[in-house]
Amino acid sequence: MANFEQYIVNPKKFSLNNFKANDKSERSKTKADDALELAKLATEINALQDILNAEGKRKVLLVLQGMDASGKDGTVRHVFSECDPLGIRLASFKAPSSDELAHDYLWRVHSQVPKAGELVIFNRSHYEDVLIVKVHDWIDDAECQRRYKQINDFEQLLTETGTVIIKCFLHISKEEQKARMQERLNEPTKTWKFNPDDLKERALWPKYMQAYEQALKATSTKHAPWYVIPADSKTNRNLLISRLLLSALKSMKLAYPPVPAEYKTIVIED
Amino acid sequence: MANFEQYIVNPKKFSLNNFKANDKSERSKTKADDALELAKLATEINALQDILNAEGKRKVLLVLQGMDASGKDGTVRHVFSECDPLGIRLASFKAPSSDELAHDYLWRVHSQVPKAGELVIFNRSHYEDVLIVKVHDWIDDAECQRRYKQINDFEQLLTETGTVIIKCFLHISKEEQKARMQERLNEPTKTWKFNPDDLKERALWPKYMQAYEQALKATSTKHAPWYVIPADSKTNRNLLISRLLLSALKSMKLAYPPVPAEYKTIVIED
Repeated sequence: MANFEQYIVNPKKFSLNNFKANDKSERSKTKADDALELAKLATEINALQDILNAEGKRKVLLVLQGMDASGKDGTVRHVFSECDPLGIRLASFKAPSSDELAHDYLWRVHSQVPKAGELVIFNRSHYEDVLIVKVHDWIDDAECQRRYKQINDFEQLLTETGTVIIKCFLHISKEEQKARMQERLNEPTKTWKFNPDDLKERALWPKYMQAYEQALKATSTKHAPWYVIPADSKTNRNLLISRLLLSALKSMKLAYPPVPAEYKTIVIED
Repeated sequence: MANFEQYIVNPKKFSLNNFKANDKSERSKTKADDALELAKLATEINALQDILNAEGKRKVLLVLQGMDASGKDGTVRHVFSECDPLGIRLASFKAPSSDELAHDYLWRVHSQVPKAGELVIFNRSHYEDVLIVKVHDWIDDAECQRRYKQINDFEQLLTETGTVIIKCFLHISKEEQKARMQERLNEPTKTWKFNPDDLKERALWPKYMQAYEQALKATSTKHAPWYVIPADSKTNRNLLISRLLLSALKSMKLAYPPVPAEYKTIVIED
């Protein structure tokens, strides 16, 4: 995918400080134009998703990671606003159950990867197992390094068996998170999304940024690169992820399967 | 749910002949008005689905059954056009895998029922196990009767544990099916949905109608009634199912959970 170089995590020189959360360069001059553009992108994504499904061979996986309130839900809502529920599937990974904990950490993730023809969105992912667990020191450095390698190997298996993987880190500033959390508290129809425990994670912001920086650097590979998405602006975020996804779908050169010759002679009886 | 009496299957006097597939009484006088109404219903469904999710206690299950090309996919696409992928989940039941066949027929279905706060759509369902298998005589009458009872008991379990079940039979005429199959054959972007085996099932139309009549009659209960949806008109079908679903959601008297008092004193630190 060309044109997205500036957002790609290059392990050789990556520093999160070089990426601005409040960058808005995907936006045009007016809100109206942005809304039109987003609707157009959503329509195109839906059209290509239909062909992906019709082809029934390859798979697409969109991984969304980011701090609380970074806009993972909003991304799903807007980027896929024109896709019907038949074409896409959302897999959300919350705190693991006791059964999930009794398996290796990739077990529950592997069971949710897209099958042939599917487009699956991961709302959080196996990366939680090198982020929250690292920030809280539930795993040590050696284990974390082992996991980076295991994750890269796992993603390589997926790409070698027909999956296109797009990984997006929704990059927001600490100030923007505060504003969004405050909004959740003030708006009665949104308060249920607020979890007081999120404040404890917020207090660990610098440790999280460090863990993200380290994880993105270690797992941004040729087969599954990471993109840092400036996400303080919701519109910028939606436009960029839509464009990234559309570009990935276009690169796949999807086509409806040829109509079998014998279909031409079929007569449907009354 | 009031006003939908005419569509409910009353086991005491049910005959499919009394239901017209080409009924269009849900429609207004103009296509434009119907489109506006459908969009309005979809918006209301989305709003209530958000509260269902926020409440996080009860569950909703919409079962869609019908012959090939009766519009199950189209229903999902239109009725849920305003719902984002976060709020609903689609479970499609195709020919069972060998692992599924090694379990009882309700096993794979039970694993897909909605959890607290979820709205799940079944595209086909456990009813295939009293329909296709009965038409082909893979089960005998005695087994079929046993299954009706098992299904009623299963659905009673679901309703008694907080699930609202809405079951819709998409009723199309044999002529309409022919037209839609022909359309799939003629339109290159739709041909991939055509399966020559569907013609073999079509040839068994009278046996299917008999199996449907018998199944609907035996499993239309107080806790989980069947609705016969006139579905030759796609607009009539979409309007009716949207209205049924909306009415069911309204009857639940959903409300956002109260904001915990202690939330008012929360200060989000910089």
